[in-house]
Formats: sequence, structure tokens, C-alpha cells
Amino acid sequence: MIETDICIIGTGPVGLFAVFEAGLLKMRCHLIDALPQVGGQLSEIYPHKPIYDIPGYPSINAQELVDNLLLQIAPFHPTYTLGERVETINRQEDKSFIIGTNEDTQVHCKVIVIAGGLGCFEPRKPAIERLEEFEHGKGVAYMVKNPETFRDKEIVLAGGGDSALDWAIFLSNVSKKVTLVHRGETFRGAPDSAEKVFNLAKEGKINLILKANLTKIDGNGTLKKVFYEDALKQMQSIQADYLIPLFGLSPKLGPIANWGLGIEKSQIIVDTTDYATNVEGIYAIGDINTYPGKLKLILCGFHEGAIMMQSAFKHVFPDKHLSFKYTTVNGVHEF
Amino acid sequence: MIETDICIIGTGPVGLFAVFEAGLLKMRCHLIDALPQVGGQLSEIYPHKPIYDIPGYPSINAQELVDNLLLQIAPFHPTYTLGERVETINRQEDKSFIIGTNEDTQVHCKVIVIAGGLGCFEPRKPAIERLEEFEHGKGVAYMVKNPETFRDKEIVLAGGGDSALDWAIFLSNVSKKVTLVHRGETFRGAPDSAEKVFNLAKEGKINLILKANLTKIDGNGTLKKVFYEDALKQMQSIQADYLIPLFGLSPKLGPIANWGLGIEKSQIIVDTTDYATNVEGIYAIGDINTYPGKLKLILCGFHEGAIMMQSAFKHVFPDKHLSFKYTTVNGVHEF
Ligand SMILES: Cc1cc2nc3c(=O)[nH]c(=O)nc-3n(C[C@H](O)[C@H](O)[C@H](O)COP(=O)(O)OP(=O)(O)OC[C@H]3O[C@@H](n4cnc5c(N)ncnc54)[C@H](O)[C@@H]3O)c2cc1C
Ligand SMILES: Cc1cc2nc3c(=O)[nH]c(=O)nc-3n(C[C@H](O)[C@H](O)[C@H](O)COP(=O)(O)OP(=O)(O)OC[C@H]3O[C@@H](n4cnc5c(N)ncnc54)[C@H](O)[C@@H]3O)c2cc1C
Repeated sequence: MIETDICIIGTGPVGLFAVFEAGLLKMRCHLIDALPQVGGQLSEIYPHKPIYDIPGYPSINAQELVDNLLLQIAPFHPTYTLGERVETINRQEDKSFIIGTNEDTQVHCKVIVIAGGLGCFEPRKPAIERLEEFEHGKGVAYMVKNPETFRDKEIVLAGGGDSALDWAIFLSNVSKKVTLVHRGETFRGAPDSAEKVFNLAKEGKINLILKANLTKIDGNGTLKKVFYEDALKQMQSIQADYLIPLFGLSPKLGPIANWGLGIEKSQIIVDTTDYATNVEGIYAIGDINTYPGKLKLILCGFHEGAIMMQSAFKHVFPDKHLSFKYTTVNGVHEF
Repeated sequence: MIETDICIIGTGPVGLFAVFEAGLLKMRCHLIDALPQVGGQLSEIYPHKPIYDIPGYPSINAQELVDNLLLQIAPFHPTYTLGERVETINRQEDKSFIIGTNEDTQVHCKVIVIAGGLGCFEPRKPAIERLEEFEHGKGVAYMVKNPETFRDKEIVLAGGGDSALDWAIFLSNVSKKVTLVHRGETFRGAPDSAEKVFNLAKEGKINLILKANLTKIDGNGTLKKVFYEDALKQMQSIQADYLIPLFGLSPKLGPIANWGLGIEKSQIIVDTTDYATNVEGIYAIGDINTYPGKLKLILCGFHEGAIMMQSAFKHVFPDKHLSFKYTTVNGVHEF
């Protein structure tokens, strides 16, 4: 069981910055995210796009902002559980909480901060026969949490965006055989990644199958074969240990809906005095919350996290008095 | 008369960033500040100190943050009136406002945003006989708005901090004669500025009078003489066209108290839905406002400005529909 003061659900920009505000008040944080990497929408959807409305940055790339936030919170040594979805929240008799994930990780904490954005990113699943039968470790994976899983295996990637290109390139050095199946002839992803994939295909390091559609999969307990219709509408098959369909992720509120929180149009209702939910000790900040005047902006989530931590302090240190100091006066090093 | 959509009172970080949020919604801004430079507390009180809690900046010097904010808002071409204090606000029949300063500048606008921080920075005045008699252009100035005023004049500066040192150095190249009177023997300001002043004194370019106290001033309509008690308690005098006492500035709510706004402990009461005051069309953001949970942090003022501008839009464009777009999607260049 992981012990912490504050458990933050969601490692988007808002969850990350909240660690800083908690740290200034000497509260430790553990963060959980369903994605294998931190950064929320910024890292998952638009890592290379510039953002223009982060105050003090005339322009900053989304991933650069995430990286800077990680540097900023590093002095407070947050800990992480990535690639796991929070499923359950159980209140204990002493008012603390035990949080449980889909992989049975447990976190014991005094305060919960939900920074869940638009919800859990769930993979867009292709319409393929018997797909769900091979999920959960039996051959079908919707994201690459740990590339080592695929070492010396025969894998089939499907998709035409950056994820499909990037992983095809990366895994061509790791796996025994990499096949990339794409329904088009050109790729939506970055042109230089596409070029690299075409070159690796020429060198025989990637088996590139264009203008093709996956139809079904087969196996016996674990995946053995992937079937597709080729450019000439002929049915073909490839031997495979893994199929990794990368058709993007779309966020769904998911388990958050089951925690007894006041919800309005898939968002958690909070009080702007401290961004508390209707359950004592549970707060919600960033895109996931709603209140009169709410704007789904990163800079608003930063503010919400700062205000919220002042209130969380009372739960973590019920007997201590909070004194407000500027970072300029003290620096962060004393914390 | 200056015409604009939004008049922002105060050019601290919060007033500056508000220009960006207004610009995204195609509203023009004019800003007024009592200080001769923009940046509010950051530029006036702690320009060289690092701030650690600006999200995305593990550390940034206060003046650098101000400079970046200026770059960020540049695409929206804000206009400024600096070195003038807003004294009056008059509502017109069509619900617009006319704002008047202590130097009779007038601004006509649809919305007023008060980003006045801790209030107007007012000079700390030394206890000198007849001081006020020579204020307002007759020889006593508490800040250097335009160094050209002092070209080829005989000036006496008083004080021991950075302002006194910096201006003594600068004006030694501009004025006919610069005298610096300081009650101590050492300076509170930056050591290398102090060293420069001592060197210029040796070269005869600054007349440095230490361990001395100003006592009174004299003149006939305009200033002629400054009297001081020297290190040996002897009364002395210097001929002078200008006396510039630089004993720091301290913020006072000032005229803001007279505008019919709901005030609580020197702060303007606002509604967190849109940071509106009790007067329609007047908003208050940053350190100057108060609401349940308020924290006087720069990052909070950024949020308040973003939310506020959505509401201001209804006053500026009563017939237009507001559509919310991310900067990432559109960039700022189209605005
Ligand atoms: C294309 C695009 C452009 C944008 N441009 C801008 C812009 O210019 N400026 C701006 O301010 N905003 C912009 N945004 C919006 C901005 O990305 C969001 O406001 C921001 O990401 C919200 O941050 P967050 O931390 O609240 O949530 P998110 O970034 O959404 O992160 C939430 C995280 O919580 C995780 N999560 C949710 N539920 C669970 C669970 N049960 N268990 C485990 N993990 C969970 C998710 O996996 C996710 O990683 C843009 C968004 C998009 C899509
Ligand atoms: C030493 C120090 C360290 C700090 N460290 C931090 C930190 O680490 N992090 C943090 O977030 N905050 C910090 N702060 C607080 C931060 O500086 C303020 O929150 C911030 O300056 C508020 O910005 P603002 O734009 O609301 O107001 P201000 O910066 O106060 O600017 C207000 C401006 O309005 C002008 N004004 C007021 N009334 C009038 C009028 N009638 N007419 C014309 N002009 C007027 C004033 O002259 C002033 O320039 C610190 C403050 C100090 C003093």
C-alpha cells in the first residue's frame, strides 16, 4: 500500500502543478494516471503544438510546458503510478481514503484531488471480430506501456497517425518482426516519421501493408493470427503475438461517475471557495470540474490548484496553522 | 480624449496579462498606471528577485516575467498612460465611462478593469519644512518620469537605496550638477551601484554628502536651495533647481475608495463568476480584489483576468455571440 498525504488522480498540467502548491505547504503527493506517460491532453493529443495563452510565455510547445512543470515540481519528489486507471475510492473510519486501480494498486491518503481532465483516455477500438477476447494481456494492447513487453515478439501495429509511426520505428529495433497495417497510402503523422517508416520498409525492417483493413483475429487463449483485406480485396493473414491498434484515444468520464460526487454534464460540481466537491476531503480541479463562469483553460486549473491546497492543508494538518508566504521571499529549497 | 474598449487601471502583471485575454476576444485596451514604468510591484519592489510559483517556470526573475508579458501582449497593441493616477470615473448616459487622471488625461471606454494591486504607489515623503509648497512642478519630484526634465539643471537626490544610486549615476551624465545626500555612510542598494557612485564622487561627477539629513528647502515660487545638517551637525545649504527625495514608495488604496465600489479592508469585493464589482461594467482583478478563498498570488490574477474578459465581452459587443476557442487551434496572429 502506497502512503501519501494527497493522491492526485490525473497527471495533466493541472494535476502536475498542484504538486507544487502542495509542496509549498509541505504536503506529499502521489499521482495516478491511466496513460503510460504524464502530461494529460498536452502529451497525448498535441505535444508539438504551441500554446499561446500560458501567462509569461508568448508561445510554448505543449510538451515543453509539461517538461517545465516536471522540473518545477521535482524539488517536492512526487511519486507516480502510470498506466493504471483509478476504479474505486473507499472512505476509512478515520476519514482517510483508500484508492484502488484496475491493476490493484492501493494508495492510502488524507485528501483526494481529482484532476481527471475530460476523463480517462480510452482507446478507440477498431471493428474487428473477436477483438475483446484477446484483450488484457492475451495479445491485444491499445497502448505501449512498456516496450520490453514486445521484445523478440512478432507484432502488428495498425493506424496512420503519429503513434503508429513512432512505435513502428521504435519497435523495429526491439521486436522480432514489425508489421504496420494502414488503410491509406499516406500517413497523417509527421512527414519525417512517415519518411523514416518508408525507408525502414525498404530496408526490410518494417513490413508495411498499405490500403489494407483489419478484419478479424484468431488464436487459442493467446493471439496467433491477424487477418486483413489487402488493396485487391483479398483476405490475407499474418502470424502475430501482439496486435496494437493505435486509432487514437478518446476521453470518457469513466469510473469517476461512480464515486458519489455531484456531477453535471460529465463534470464534477465544485465550490469556488476551495474547489471542494460534495464529499469532504475530495477536491476537483482543471477540466474535470464545473462552476459558474468556468473556462476549460490550463491557466485556470493552475489557480484552482493553488486555492484548493490551502483548504486541503486543514485535512492533512488539522492542528497546524497555515501561514501564507511568497516563494520569492523563501525560495522552494527550504521545503 | 483617448477612445478604447477597455481601460485597465494598473499595469502590474495582472493588468498586463488581461490585455492578452481581451485581445483574444478582439477588445482593445488602454492602460494607466501611476508609476512611470509598467510591472507593478514586480518592477517597483523586487525586479531582480526570482519567483518560483509562476506555473511552467521553475524560476523566473520578476522583471523577466514582466518583459515576457509585454512580448505576449504586443500582438494586441495596447496603449499606455504612465506616471498618472486615475482620480475620477464618470458614468455616461450610454453606460460608457470617462476616466480622468491627476494630469487631466481622459479616457472614454465601455468597460473598466481595476488591476490596482495594493493601490497607488505613493512616495514616502521625508519630514522637511515647506516640502509640499514646491511639489507639482515647482522643484520637488518624487520619481523620475522623464530624465530630460533634469537636463542641465542642478539637482539634489536624497536616499540610500537602489533608486537613489541608479538615478544619481544616470543623471550625472544629464544634469549640470548632481548632489546625493544620504543619512548613512553605506548604501542599502546593490554593491556595484554603490561602488560606481563612490567612483563618480571621486571623479567629481557626483557631489556625495554622507551622514547628512535634509532639514528644509527654500525658494521663490520655484525651488532655489536645499538645507541639510552635515555629519558635524552644522547647517549647510546647496543651490538646487530640483530636489528628488527617493525614500521608496508605499501603496495606498487612494482614489479607488471614492468610486462607489463595495470595499472590504481596502480591497474591492467581487463575484467569482466574473470578477465584477457592484458597479455594472467595472471589474476588479489581482491583488486589489477580495472574495472567499482569495490568495494574493500572480497566478490567481491571471485566472481572474481570463474569466473576467468573457463577461466584459457582453458590454463591449452586446450583440455578438462569444465562441470559445483554444489559442493552440487558432494562434494569436489572426487577431
Ligand atoms: C487540441 C487542443 C488544444 C488545446 N489548446 C489549449 C490552449 O491553447 N490553451 C489552454 O489553456 N488549453 C488548451 N487546451 C485544453 C487543455 O489541454 C486542457 O485544459 C488541459 O489539458 C486540462 O488539464 P487537466 O490537467 O485538467 O486535464 P488533462 O490534461 O485532460 O489530464 C487529465 C488526466 O487524467 C487522467 N484520468 C482521468 N480519469 C482517470 C482515472 N479514473 N484514473 C486515472 N487517470 C485518469 C487522464 O488519463 C488524463 O491524463 C487544448 C486542448 C486540445 C485538445
Ligand atoms: C517582495 C514581494 C515578493 C512577492 N513574491 C511573490 C511570489 O513569489 N509569487 C506571487 O505570486 N506573488 C508574489 N508577490 C505578490 C505579487 O507581486 C502580487 O500578487 C502582484 O504584483 C499583483 O499584481 P497586480 O497586477 O494585481 O498588482 P500590482 O503589481 O500591485 O500593480 C498594481 C498597479 O496599479 C497601480 N495603481 C493602483 N491604483 C492606481 C490608480 N488609481 N491610478 C493609476 N495606477 C494605479 C499601481 O501603481 C501599480 O503599479 C510578492 C510581492 C512582494 C512585495
